[in-house]
Amino acid sequence: MLTKETVEKSLESVIVPAAARAITGLNLVRDIEIDDKMVSVKLAKTALNEGTQQWLEEKVIEAVQKAEKGVKTTVEYVEATPAELNQIGNVLAVMSGKGGVGKSLVAGLTAISLNRLGKTAGILDADITGPSIPKMFGISGGPGGSESGILPVSSKSGIELMSINLLLPSEDEAVIWRGPLIARAITQFWEEVLWGKLDYLVVDLPPGTADAPLTVMQTLPVSGVIVVYTPQDLTAMIVKKAVRMAQKMDKPIIGVVENMSYLYVEEIDKKIELFGKSQGDEMAKAANAPLLGKLPIDPNLAKLCDAGSIEGYDSEFIDSVGKAIIKATQK
Amino acid sequence: MLTKETVEKSLESVIVPAAARAITGLNLVRDIEIDDKMVSVKLAKTALNEGTQQWLEEKVIEAVQKAEKGVKTTVEYVEATPAELNQIGNVLAVMSGKGGVGKSLVAGLTAISLNRLGKTAGILDADITGPSIPKMFGISGGPGGSESGILPVSSKSGIELMSINLLLPSEDEAVIWRGPLIARAITQFWEEVLWGKLDYLVVDLPPGTADAPLTVMQTLPVSGVIVVYTPQDLTAMIVKKAVRMAQKMDKPIIGVVENMSYLYVEEIDKKIELFGKSQGDEMAKAANAPLLGKLPIDPNLAKLCDAGSIEGYDSEFIDSVGKAIIKATQK
Repeated sequence: MLTKETVEKSLESVIVPAAARAITGLNLVRDIEIDDKMVSVKLAKTALNEGTQQWLEEKVIEAVQKAEKGVKTTVEYVEATPAELNQIGNVLAVMSGKGGVGKSLVAGLTAISLNRLGKTAGILDADITGPSIPKMFGISGGPGGSESGILPVSSKSGIELMSINLLLPSEDEAVIWRGPLIARAITQFWEEVLWGKLDYLVVDLPPGTADAPLTVMQTLPVSGVIVVYTPQDLTAMIVKKAVRMAQKMDKPIIGVVENMSYLYVEEIDKKIELFGKSQGDEMAKAANAPLLGKLPIDPNLAKLCDAGSIEGYDSEFIDSVGKAIIKATQK
Repeated sequence: MLTKETVEKSLESVIVPAAARAITGLNLVRDIEIDDKMVSVKLAKTALNEGTQQWLEEKVIEAVQKAEKGVKTTVEYVEATPAELNQIGNVLAVMSGKGGVGKSLVAGLTAISLNRLGKTAGILDADITGPSIPKMFGISGGPGGSESGILPVSSKSGIELMSINLLLPSEDEAVIWRGPLIARAITQFWEEVLWGKLDYLVVDLPPGTADAPLTVMQTLPVSGVIVVYTPQDLTAMIVKKAVRMAQKMDKPIIGVVENMSYLYVEEIDKKIELFGKSQGDEMAKAANAPLLGKLPIDPNLAKLCDAGSIEGYDSEFIDSVGKAIIKATQK
């Protein structure tokens, strides 16, 4: 007997090529009706050009036929905005106030950790003037889509990414924009990108406490903030500004991450605290949130990031950070 | 014989207490007239409260008397805006596009270098949401001034500083402002601060290519840009965006500085290139400007910065950067 569930299950094999993702994951399946040996599937045509729509129609018919032979399937396309389709469990904002402390790195590793734990994850790169995410993940192509929506680019391990750098003619092109335009770009990344169904969307904020972080805090339903810092006093001072901002805007801080905590020098089997003593206790206290982990300075990680292979990295931090976040966001 | 020159010379000893700087350096002396044994001095009252005006009047009279006994001196105060008084030889913008690469460090060391070479130097901290300069120089007090102008704070070695952090009730207070307010603060630091006579004003830009850098490029007469980067590919990409911005806005890049170039580990007498190989040649080529120097990762420097003692640092970089800049700006 053909049920809605078996049809839906069969549609999980229908992939939107430009997104490298199933129509179910993109939440394009709007309705399934079964009447005897007749199946009608309603699909949103959001972010799909006409060629893709035709191609998907065939694939849907094939997939249902595979699930049960002799079935006749019809596909109807309906309109929907990305905002109507997006189902995002948790929006996590990675912030720091200070630049260069490793926000993008932590955002990347956090998404990788959640993904390895079986959660669907995406990264919205809100650093419009200094976007790092695509390079770390080795992605340079432009995203697909149509007038009705933009498709995020899927990383090697299936993390959904959107960044201004995917939209620029060259990756070192400068985006010389004032605040309102930057805010508009971030809002677009939220409203006009078809993220589909995601358990976690990690937002990589730019440094500072000005336009871009403000826009994210005000526009996106941020459910938790992760604060990144390095153990230098100077940095800690500026990161505390970010903590204040999150608190003023009533966004719960779910944890702090210490980056560049130490350097391990193999030749002498010694950890050198290059930027001063760990400030884990102090920062956790200032943020009133647990220390989620410490990241060392790791030349190997820097190399992987430069090579676009951050997903090939293994570390204690990746093992633990996702678990801590899942625990903190399950209420 | 009493001449204008001897009177002016004598006024170099008259210090404005709140600025720890002479009235001549602040360019407050508007006119000196000598008629027989009568000297009349016109002083701008810009940034001086009434108590200071009275106090300075006495000091001016004393100073002239010291230069020549029996002279009768009158002091007249006139109005002037800081913009009318400021005489700044060169405005240098330190930028990078990417956060945390050491812009503030390079801005600080550059000013120190110029100062040691006998040039008067100031730093305008245009990083409104992440100001680092005051902490590096160990300054926490608020600046003096009056309704007619703000006095920069003088560092231990006599570098003139202005930063939003000098104006906040607490150094870890967040400045949650959108672009226009940030632009306004930077414009104020330029127009309403009595910088007086400076050979060099070093502007420490925030990361990115958005509002704050744009405002500096459009509002201040930037005569040269110093681009800071670290040898990671990822950083180089974003720093190139800053290079593009400077080029698009027709601001000459006078040099590039590589920060975090390597770490010297004493135990093994070895330089480790933590973030990858030096990109001096590539960046100099991209910026079409010379490599002004390389800064290692130096835990001792990090400590000095945290302790507010950056002026106690000695390095090859400090010796050379000022000379290179003086050479580049003498035309």
